[in-house]
Amino acid sequence: MLPNAYGQAISLESARKAAAAALAEAARNHWTMAVAVVDPNGTLIYYEKMDNTQLGSANVAVAKARSAALFKRPTKAFQDALAGGGAGLRVMALEGAVPVEGGLPLLADGKIVGAIGLSGDTSEHDGQCAQAGASTIK
Amino acid sequence: MLPNAYGQAISLESARKAAAAALAEAARNHWTMAVAVVDPNGTLIYYEKMDNTQLGSANVAVAKARSAALFKRPTKAFQDALAGGGAGLRVMALEGAVPVEGGLPLLADGKIVGAIGLSGDTSEHDGQCAQAGASTIK
Amino acid sequence: MLPNAYGQAISLESARKAAAAALAEAARNHWTMAVAVVDPNGTLIYYEKMDNTQLGSANVAVAKARSAALFKRPTKAFQDALAGGGAGLRVMALEGAVPVEGGLPLLADGKIVGAIGLSGDTSEHDGQCAQAGASTIK
Amino acid sequence: MLPNAYGQAISLESARKAAAAALAEAARNHWTMAVAVVDPNGTLIYYEKMDNTQLGSANVAVAKARSAALFKRPTKAFQDALAGGGAGLRVMALEGAVPVEGGLPLLADGKIVGAIGLSGDTSEHDGQCAQAGASTIK
Repeated sequence: MLPNAYGQAISLESARKAAAAALAEAARNHWTMAVAVVDPNGTLIYYEKMDNTQLGSANVAVAKARSAALFKRPTKAFQDALAGGGAGLRVMALEGAVPVEGGLPLLADGKIVGAIGLSGDTSEHDGQCAQAGASTIK
Repeated sequence: MLPNAYGQAISLESARKAAAAALAEAARNHWTMAVAVVDPNGTLIYYEKMDNTQLGSANVAVAKARSAALFKRPTKAFQDALAGGGAGLRVMALEGAVPVEGGLPLLADGKIVGAIGLSGDTSEHDGQCAQAGASTIK
Repeated sequence: MLPNAYGQAISLESARKAAAAALAEAARNHWTMAVAVVDPNGTLIYYEKMDNTQLGSANVAVAKARSAALFKRPTKAFQDALAGGGAGLRVMALEGAVPVEGGLPLLADGKIVGAIGLSGDTSEHDGQCAQAGASTIK
Repeated sequence: MLPNAYGQAISLESARKAAAAALAEAARNHWTMAVAVVDPNGTLIYYEKMDNTQLGSANVAVAKARSAALFKRPTKAFQDALAGGGAGLRVMALEGAVPVEGGLPLLADGKIVGAIGLSGDTSEHDGQCAQAGASTIK
């Protein structure tokens, strides 16, 4: 879990920029994806879905973003806990937690201002595009 | 209910254009809104929320768009049925129906290719902006 | 709808003060109530329920507070729309809206920093106690 | 499962004391948490969330308390069953059960009078604070 405090929600303009960078990374690799940007409470600020993306990714992209905002950590952290087995399986029963790579908190001036979630290809690729989006926020 | 058949889902590019026109109409009037564009099944294609929009509009914009797509009619039609009272009250119990102006089917070449939903100001204003968005699709 | 922007979420300390003032007003009148204070997105910050309060008020208090935060207006505004009949009935079908007096936005320095919801007695009495709570925030 | 009978719901005053002790333990360790106290049926009696707690903990704290009350056992018992694998995985499909440490039944005079749930840090730390809260009830 990130120790960072929550800040004011990211602006629509910044959310749009992060999403554009994430989908540009997807397009460069010929992947089709949905991207969602949420505020610290998980409320949707921006979303778009590339044509022909698997339709289940519409909800999954939003869920990944929410998980990253609500639990102040990349969804990959929950995926790793799950992969470890044993008590780590509990993350599957944690309301709002998504243990699948592709969701990242967004930080500006050291505060968590929202999160981004990607879904559409392998979770590693989803994570790569989420990173491209997150790195546009400073 | 529109007699029109469903067509292929609207493209992301067209969805983005419709949303931009809808929010431009909102901005011109100093209203803050969320806009959602969905495919014929109600799956989210595009969404954005202006800064400081009332947060409840995040879900309401999507719900209005879904209602318009799933029931092939403007949400205003359900609102009018509701306002008429009597058996018209039944629309409140219809799963997925939203009897609040601001959701419109999107038609291209006579086929329903999706729907747009706006929320954030009075429902009349929401409807005015939805119309501005819908009129970009031919 | 209030034209005010959203601000940072009210602190736990301020939430506790608002709730205490609301329940003090209830106790003074020998009413039993539940009180909830939420952030601008409707996430619960503080809550308490007086002994012997009707148990249904546990959820209703939270729902009233959420409605006031998410729609930037007192729940009484939705109640009045509903009472007017006709198209006003639509507020019953608006996701997250509660058309029952007793929920109020909380304003600090002109920004909406959360909301308070009361439930347990008549809705007029609930509203009176909500007002006592809201007036502690400046 | 505890063999104890259910008693009358814990009073608001006792719930507040238990929550205060739990959060004092959290503060002493520089952890941020949400705490919930529920009655034997899982109805919320008292709740507070420290500033900057991860927002997903708002719902999780309540869910842990409910699980402990409804199933007469610490949520750690379900977590251990889950960690054991095999048939133990079934706890993930048990409605209302939360297999994550941090929820404890509250006992007074040998009767279950409610439960407390903590969320915000590691589940071990959540459990440590829940214990500090539970030990205030005799």
